[in-house]
Amino acid sequence: MPERKPKVLVVGSGGVGAIGALCLTLNDKADVTLVVRSDYAKVNESGYSIKSVTYGEHENWKPRHIAKSVADASERFGEFDFILLTTKNIPDGPITCEDIIRPAVTPRTAIILLQNGLGIEKPMIEQFPHNVILSGVTLLCSTNINCVVCNSLKDQIYLGAWSNLNIKNHAEKEQSAINEFTRIYSNEYNKVFIDENVEKTRWEKLLYNAALNSTTTIVNLDVSRCQIAGANNELFRPAMREIVAIAASEGVEISPETVEKFIHISDGQFYSPSMCVDARKKQLFESEIILGNPIKIAEANGVETPVLKTLYTLLSMVQFRIKEEKGIIKIDENEYRNTNSDSYPDILKK
Amino acid sequence: MPERKPKVLVVGSGGVGAIGALCLTLNDKADVTLVVRSDYAKVNESGYSIKSVTYGEHENWKPRHIAKSVADASERFGEFDFILLTTKNIPDGPITCEDIIRPAVTPRTAIILLQNGLGIEKPMIEQFPHNVILSGVTLLCSTNINCVVCNSLKDQIYLGAWSNLNIKNHAEKEQSAINEFTRIYSNEYNKVFIDENVEKTRWEKLLYNAALNSTTTIVNLDVSRCQIAGANNELFRPAMREIVAIAASEGVEISPETVEKFIHISDGQFYSPSMCVDARKKQLFESEIILGNPIKIAEANGVETPVLKTLYTLLSMVQFRIKEEKGIIKIDENEYRNTNSDSYPDILKK
Repeated sequence: MPERKPKVLVVGSGGVGAIGALCLTLNDKADVTLVVRSDYAKVNESGYSIKSVTYGEHENWKPRHIAKSVADASERFGEFDFILLTTKNIPDGPITCEDIIRPAVTPRTAIILLQNGLGIEKPMIEQFPHNVILSGVTLLCSTNINCVVCNSLKDQIYLGAWSNLNIKNHAEKEQSAINEFTRIYSNEYNKVFIDENVEKTRWEKLLYNAALNSTTTIVNLDVSRCQIAGANNELFRPAMREIVAIAASEGVEISPETVEKFIHISDGQFYSPSMCVDARKKQLFESEIILGNPIKIAEANGVETPVLKTLYTLLSMVQFRIKEEKGIIKIDENEYRNTNSDSYPDILKK
Repeated sequence: MPERKPKVLVVGSGGVGAIGALCLTLNDKADVTLVVRSDYAKVNESGYSIKSVTYGEHENWKPRHIAKSVADASERFGEFDFILLTTKNIPDGPITCEDIIRPAVTPRTAIILLQNGLGIEKPMIEQFPHNVILSGVTLLCSTNINCVVCNSLKDQIYLGAWSNLNIKNHAEKEQSAINEFTRIYSNEYNKVFIDENVEKTRWEKLLYNAALNSTTTIVNLDVSRCQIAGANNELFRPAMREIVAIAASEGVEISPETVEKFIHISDGQFYSPSMCVDARKKQLFESEIILGNPIKIAEANGVETPVLKTLYTLLSMVQFRIKEEKGIIKIDENEYRNTNSDSYPDILKK
């Protein structure tokens, strides 16, 4: 009897999730299920069209299993050894990541957060206190627009344990999960870095996301146009310096060279970060994990972050506008007519 | 022979200019010319439709003279004792206020700046070193949309001298101009306050404009929605505190009560400030005199203004986007392809 292949559920079928599912399928060391929500019928019929600098071109490609929802996946193809979570992480949106994956989490499941932002591991451990949680950072540059997937940077994943002290011998179990996932994911085209300090890697990537994603989203301009308008010195570097200060207050040292790397990483590209693209499409974006959580840490540690707080407040207002446009929040103007503006009901907490 | 009435040229036929011309015409103590640029044919044909809480309703109203341009006005109806300047003040736009009025300025002309913002008197004195310059703040709330003028607050003007040391006996001449304008403008419906400290009045009005106009413009939300989203504590008060600090560094004391007055002045109104309305219409707005100039003063005086600087940079980027959309600036992306983003050509200074 052949050895049972580990079962992997990929949640999130955007650019990162589709490429992750493709890689695992090509390697053929795992049994892959991909959750495909809005595009299910289309993908079931004709699959994806993929152009990847890492894995080549694939027409009408789909993984072994696709499912309409996490619950559907769990019923038909569980139980899963790994959940590879690649969705946006929007705790202030209609559903949290924890609730999204809940139907598929079993005691054996290691949960890999291949997502941006800071502070995303804690709520996951709170909700699933006895599961192994791995934290991953990808530098893959990949989009999925109407089932056409374009990946333009080599697939590199930084993967580390997020110590879960609830688990007996947690380090050993976490290391075992890292090794196993690295075994089924690695091939000659990609690179999985086992990251002893994935927290630092997250802070470093946050330099870009906190400064550039937020600014481009607020003003609806690509990175290069912001820079032509003077953003490097007036906004990007001041915002990044505050990120460096918060990280330092957590014992994470970020070098000036790393700051400059991210200042220049989009030079001449006229690139619009995904958050800015989401806002243009009137989709919710990750303001809490990109700015809200770092600011909470700053406040707890007594670090001043006036620039980040201003960006965060403005970004939250853009998100507020989009939520109202989408009908996620509704404002009855009459409710506010004779009210002191310091006592306005906080509709976001309703 | 009857006494010669003072000639007044009103420049700017928005809500403030139209009401100013109406008041002066009704009083019949001045010979009024209004410059009407884009709407000239329409106003010449059928005048304005005015609903004013101060001056009542007027259909098909127009002042004695209208002119297509300042030069046209000067040729046909000059020379003017007063220029009442009510346009937006956009030094970074296609034409400065100084250049707008230049064709009509003669040695006898007193120039009244009935405009928002800070630092608008200095360039005026530099360009017209021997003219009397008066500085005015209006709390009139008035719009002109397609020649329909709606004025919803009582017409009150704070008027003061802006000492022009180039003029011999300047205080006397300035006071004489104030008295004369007050005489021709005042009536039983309005109020002209002779303001010994118009600089302070400007700083106070700036509290609202710097914090609320800029925020609503950047995020495209009205004031009340910003407040529902938490703006009072997260953004408006921090920005206003910085304005208070800059004013203090100039010897101008603003009370906490004044801050609170402007925080609450739009409570429950779901009001969109004119800057926000301009941005929605893709028109340029007054980012320099509302934020740029106060920040320059802060830098000269060593006052930290991280919130205002962040708002200013973002607001300038929104203006940048509108300038590109209007074709005022053009970006050739190829020019930037292989360039370090710290060395991008500054297209705004071209």
